[in-house]
Amino acid sequence: MLEREQRILITRITTEHARALRKKFKRAVHHESARCVTIEKQPLRKRPGTIAVVCAGTSDLPVAEEAAVTAEIMGNHVERLSDVGVSGLHRLLGRLELIQSANVVVVVAGMEGALPSVVAGLVSRPVIAVPTSVGYGASFGGLAALLGMLNSCGTGVTVVNIDNGFGAGYAASQMNALVSGAGIT
Amino acid sequence: MLEREQRILITRITTEHARALRKKFKRAVHHESARCVTIEKQPLRKRPGTIAVVCAGTSDLPVAEEAAVTAEIMGNHVERLSDVGVSGLHRLLGRLELIQSANVVVVVAGMEGALPSVVAGLVSRPVIAVPTSVGYGASFGGLAALLGMLNSCGTGVTVVNIDNGFGAGYAASQMNALVSGAGIT
Amino acid sequence: MLEREQRILITRITTEHARALRKKFKRAVHHESARCVTIEKQPLRKRPGTIAVVCAGTSDLPVAEEAAVTAEIMGNHVERLSDVGVSGLHRLLGRLELIQSANVVVVVAGMEGALPSVVAGLVSRPVIAVPTSVGYGASFGGLAALLGMLNSCGTGVTVVNIDNGFGAGYAASQMNALVSGAGIT
Amino acid sequence: MLEREQRILITRITTEHARALRKKFKRAVHHESARCVTIEKQPLRKRPGTIAVVCAGTSDLPVAEEAAVTAEIMGNHVERLSDVGVSGLHRLLGRLELIQSANVVVVVAGMEGALPSVVAGLVSRPVIAVPTSVGYGASFGGLAALLGMLNSCGTGVTVVNIDNGFGAGYAASQMNALVSGAGIT
Amino acid sequence: MLEREQRILITRITTEHARALRKKFKRAVHHESARCVTIEKQPLRKRPGTIAVVCAGTSDLPVAEEAAVTAEIMGNHVERLSDVGVSGLHRLLGRLELIQSANVVVVVAGMEGALPSVVAGLVSRPVIAVPTSVGYGASFGGLAALLGMLNSCGTGVTVVNIDNGFGAGYAASQMNALVSGAGIT
Amino acid sequence: MLEREQRILITRITTEHARALRKKFKRAVHHESARCVTIEKQPLRKRPGTIAVVCAGTSDLPVAEEAAVTAEIMGNHVERLSDVGVSGLHRLLGRLELIQSANVVVVVAGMEGALPSVVAGLVSRPVIAVPTSVGYGASFGGLAALLGMLNSCGTGVTVVNIDNGFGAGYAASQMNALVSGAGIT
Amino acid sequence: MLEREQRILITRITTEHARALRKKFKRAVHHESARCVTIEKQPLRKRPGTIAVVCAGTSDLPVAEEAAVTAEIMGNHVERLSDVGVSGLHRLLGRLELIQSANVVVVVAGMEGALPSVVAGLVSRPVIAVPTSVGYGASFGGLAALLGMLNSCGTGVTVVNIDNGFGAGYAASQMNALVSGAGIT
Amino acid sequence: MLEREQRILITRITTEHARALRKKFKRAVHHESARCVTIEKQPLRKRPGTIAVVCAGTSDLPVAEEAAVTAEIMGNHVERLSDVGVSGLHRLLGRLELIQSANVVVVVAGMEGALPSVVAGLVSRPVIAVPTSVGYGASFGGLAALLGMLNSCGTGVTVVNIDNGFGAGYAASQMNALVSGAGIT
Repeated sequence: MLEREQRILITRITTEHARALRKKFKRAVHHESARCVTIEKQPLRKRPGTIAVVCAGTSDLPVAEEAAVTAEIMGNHVERLSDVGVSGLHRLLGRLELIQSANVVVVVAGMEGALPSVVAGLVSRPVIAVPTSVGYGASFGGLAALLGMLNSCGTGVTVVNIDNGFGAGYAASQMNALVSGAGIT
Repeated sequence: MLEREQRILITRITTEHARALRKKFKRAVHHESARCVTIEKQPLRKRPGTIAVVCAGTSDLPVAEEAAVTAEIMGNHVERLSDVGVSGLHRLLGRLELIQSANVVVVVAGMEGALPSVVAGLVSRPVIAVPTSVGYGASFGGLAALLGMLNSCGTGVTVVNIDNGFGAGYAASQMNALVSGAGIT
Repeated sequence: MLEREQRILITRITTEHARALRKKFKRAVHHESARCVTIEKQPLRKRPGTIAVVCAGTSDLPVAEEAAVTAEIMGNHVERLSDVGVSGLHRLLGRLELIQSANVVVVVAGMEGALPSVVAGLVSRPVIAVPTSVGYGASFGGLAALLGMLNSCGTGVTVVNIDNGFGAGYAASQMNALVSGAGIT
Repeated sequence: MLEREQRILITRITTEHARALRKKFKRAVHHESARCVTIEKQPLRKRPGTIAVVCAGTSDLPVAEEAAVTAEIMGNHVERLSDVGVSGLHRLLGRLELIQSANVVVVVAGMEGALPSVVAGLVSRPVIAVPTSVGYGASFGGLAALLGMLNSCGTGVTVVNIDNGFGAGYAASQMNALVSGAGIT
Repeated sequence: MLEREQRILITRITTEHARALRKKFKRAVHHESARCVTIEKQPLRKRPGTIAVVCAGTSDLPVAEEAAVTAEIMGNHVERLSDVGVSGLHRLLGRLELIQSANVVVVVAGMEGALPSVVAGLVSRPVIAVPTSVGYGASFGGLAALLGMLNSCGTGVTVVNIDNGFGAGYAASQMNALVSGAGIT
Repeated sequence: MLEREQRILITRITTEHARALRKKFKRAVHHESARCVTIEKQPLRKRPGTIAVVCAGTSDLPVAEEAAVTAEIMGNHVERLSDVGVSGLHRLLGRLELIQSANVVVVVAGMEGALPSVVAGLVSRPVIAVPTSVGYGASFGGLAALLGMLNSCGTGVTVVNIDNGFGAGYAASQMNALVSGAGIT
Repeated sequence: MLEREQRILITRITTEHARALRKKFKRAVHHESARCVTIEKQPLRKRPGTIAVVCAGTSDLPVAEEAAVTAEIMGNHVERLSDVGVSGLHRLLGRLELIQSANVVVVVAGMEGALPSVVAGLVSRPVIAVPTSVGYGASFGGLAALLGMLNSCGTGVTVVNIDNGFGAGYAASQMNALVSGAGIT
Repeated sequence: MLEREQRILITRITTEHARALRKKFKRAVHHESARCVTIEKQPLRKRPGTIAVVCAGTSDLPVAEEAAVTAEIMGNHVERLSDVGVSGLHRLLGRLELIQSANVVVVVAGMEGALPSVVAGLVSRPVIAVPTSVGYGASFGGLAALLGMLNSCGTGVTVVNIDNGFGAGYAASQMNALVSGAGIT
């Protein structure tokens, strides 16, 4: 497969499989918190502009990292903000400039999934919401966050499947590619 | 019934029934946006302290008003804030002092139900969340807002049934009554 | 309101309300199949590039039109394709060039919601999927289409709420605005 | 973290982690049935008044204890009643005075979640209902109890997420803090 | 049909149809609150022993009456108790003897459906629980009451479909028929 | 506990616990397929009349046996029929006399839960339906069987929780006790 | 459209529309209980062999008739059996020969949807199950029947959407066409 | 059992059990990817005509193989196509002739379950759709695929339970048997 492709992204990989791959392919890089391995013969040249990947805390981090790594291997600059939840608005507002300067914002959130609504009220660029299965009880494996995001009062928010960091990163890259007018590779 | 009771609250009343009651009982007051009628022989003396009733906009107003009228007839001062949604944070932050000065905050929201999480991050007093059936599609009659509130990352948020403004106003009054040490009447 | 704003979009309007508005505002335009009224003092200059709005047939048309009208009033050229369902692939394939030439593709579908997956396999640009409440029985008011789209095997598909043509048109415009580097107005 | 904070509460901890913490921090206390560890440099002075934590039996005990330990570390006196279910009313009625003397009542119940309705009919103070995931079959992981509590005919009952003893204890403390007029710490 | 059968029970009938039937068949009796019409050539002789039909209030009455009328036309004495909810235990306890003297107890309840659990804790005879669609929001058309009853901690409670007063009355009659050893007619 | 009670039934016990109990209490009997242990100082005298416990095959057997053992320890004769499914009507019809001679019939079924409807059409005595979690895919842990039974076209069928063999056996005993006019012990 | 096609089937038509069509097209036939209109320039020659359409009673009849009319216009002989429910097995068994002689059996049922399982146990030919939305309460608009049929213990049962008589008739015709080796027209 | 039957199919078998069976019965064949074992004294003579079993990729393969092995042991020729998903239409179209030449087409798909709709638009023979539990998040264990297939816009598609390869293979064989006019064995 590696012969055919210039770069490969393997998601949801266990630490054991990652180690085996790294033994076999010296170019393989293990992104631990993203639970991904990437193998690149030659990295893509980065597009101008950034994609911001925003989440509220450590439990949403693996999905956020999956989105970030996906966007990076597809040739995008990524800004990570991982401590900006709705119950601590000052941290969010303190980093507003960074978020507003991105071409596309990926917002990852579990529990009630409220963060994309708040972010969408603060930026004019596309916001992609990723619900995570973080939570318990009436979160029903991410359903609460998913429904929250689909009903977001923030106009223009689009949503991907629960825990689908890869899909969000891919879509964000498609959108960011519009800036330079180039197709996606 | 009016003979036995000092004051009566009728919720979810139609305009026609309200008119009929007002003809029959001259003390009857029709709270139109709350869809309630109250009849009080002698209003309760107001407790010290206020209950804030917060919502995002006109569609949540009937439920918010039901909560407010309930709290008022039970002897509480009520502050109404009806234009403070999560996608317009500046309006919310602009009225923060008013919200923070209340003993209890009732937050009414439909769609994704994110407002209680944001409010709970800004106050230290009890927050009662009321999901409304406002929305369409995947709001499933208020289920999305309900699940969002139950999974709120805002610590200490408690929740009542969908559209249950009465229950929220009643609970808020019970809590506010604790301040003066008196039981509920 | 019209005094403050340059252009207004009213969605989900009845024919009666539309007529009343047209009497009052001579600039008001009634988009019948979209169930919208637009009032523009001065239309926005169109951005370069197009947004394609694709659906399978007459029953999905109101939602597709809502998306199209939204994108148009926000300054985008829109291509409408309204007869391209998954059970008649030749019609879809016959218009492939048109779809592939768009910057963003909005795909509207009810019932099993399979069309976005097929379209996403044929284009490299962002695809926004809009489930509709068209169907009966186990469609559960659009839930089947919504779940289908969230689980799409077409990479990079993002989804909005059931029947939310407005949100899809708005998001598509945000994405298309990236091409010219301009913010959204 | 302990340097910054005066007291720490860790919930849903395993016995192994608890032991490790107790080795490291000699002030650490393991509340076994609550599955919590608390570390207090200096305990808070107790507020006047009590919070009652009521449940029906051994299977609901871990959640009830989580609520009780949370309320205690936040400076409240807690009365525990753990054998008072709806199918044995005499036990409940036999301890009625104790329940009625509390400022706030936390009621923890699984299965059909009927206990809060019964308790709310017997007290005039705030009742916080906590559904638990105790049950099988059509309890659907606590959903039956949750829905039961949201539909409680007992006026003024508010509800937290399934198994969320911490949230209930926190909210109860916020309410009890109203009595002494102090904010929550 | 009347020629073949000795007695007929028509449930869920409108007032108009009931009137039409009464005009046509002079033996027809309209049970208004039960929304039933019965036509009996010759009433069955009553079995010894009684069936108690218990509910909490006026909104559950039509379903309770349907159960009562069904049991009566099948030859049973019926005791009706219609004001005994879980949030007013004293009324329930005040009529305990009547309930305990019945061979079978039908308990009708909407909202959280807690009454059967309480009643089952007080009697040793079969308890048939009937959930009603009374409620709003998270009652989901009687689902909350249904789940509550299926998860009842009251041992031996059996459940029928939502609003199925007829089925409960029929089953109660089958059970009461066991006392006299006779089959059901 | 054994000191206080004349007989004890422990359900859902593992083989290991059962062995431990049998070592400790020589009267303990392990009902393996029912996953129960019973300990009786002195068995109850059997009531006249029988309870039939009917199921379709080996996978429903544990729940059926739990019902049977429960009914037996409560003093009832039990007839077991465990090979009578709806897709093999001749076996069911071949044992019809046995089923029809019982005072109460407990019918245990998973998958589509159709057996109680068929049985109820063939007998005039009370039928208690027990859904089991047997099945996969769209059986949703017994939900399909539960809904099937609640919607049974067989009049007079009452239902207990998924896998609740104990509840069914208990209710059946309460009903059978009506025959001899005695209360339940 | 009629010019292009040899025959047309319009389903779910109101009586008013049917009348209008019959005025306009003299060949139009209104199948009242099926709620369909057919217009045939020249009826198809009937295939050898029959399709049996089986249902339990009057409330399932419209869906059963829709299936039957669909199969007929597609060139099949149809046998209708409309009084054969699971709670009256003798009627079903009395007409067994007719059912067994069909090439394909369409079974239409609401409520618990048990009939296809019973029929599939009696025939060796393909059985197509059609759930109907007949029922109330926990039938959830046909969901109970749908789940029952999907979990049928009758091997080889396939299922169509709730109330989808047309789809069942169409599929039955496709299957019956296999007998004569001809494609479907 | 083997004495009575000419051939046996055991589905959902573990590798360990398969090995044990192969040791005991030398005729036993282990179909690894189908997770089945077959034991045939004398294979059935193959019917004329083929059944096509179509799926999108490796994750749906076990269910597709279960269908294929079932159809084979029942005496049918089976064509397997396992790389034809909706997001890669060219592969599907490239093998169209093979699919169109089959008497019956079994289509296996997880995630959004869109493949049967596309296939049904391309063939005129019966299409049996099998949803699989492949997916994550909002696939809800195959529910999304199941609902998608039930709502298929492809006319005449019938559906079996999630992961029910056996049922689909069995039904396909029943249909294919119609061609030769023979009953099923």
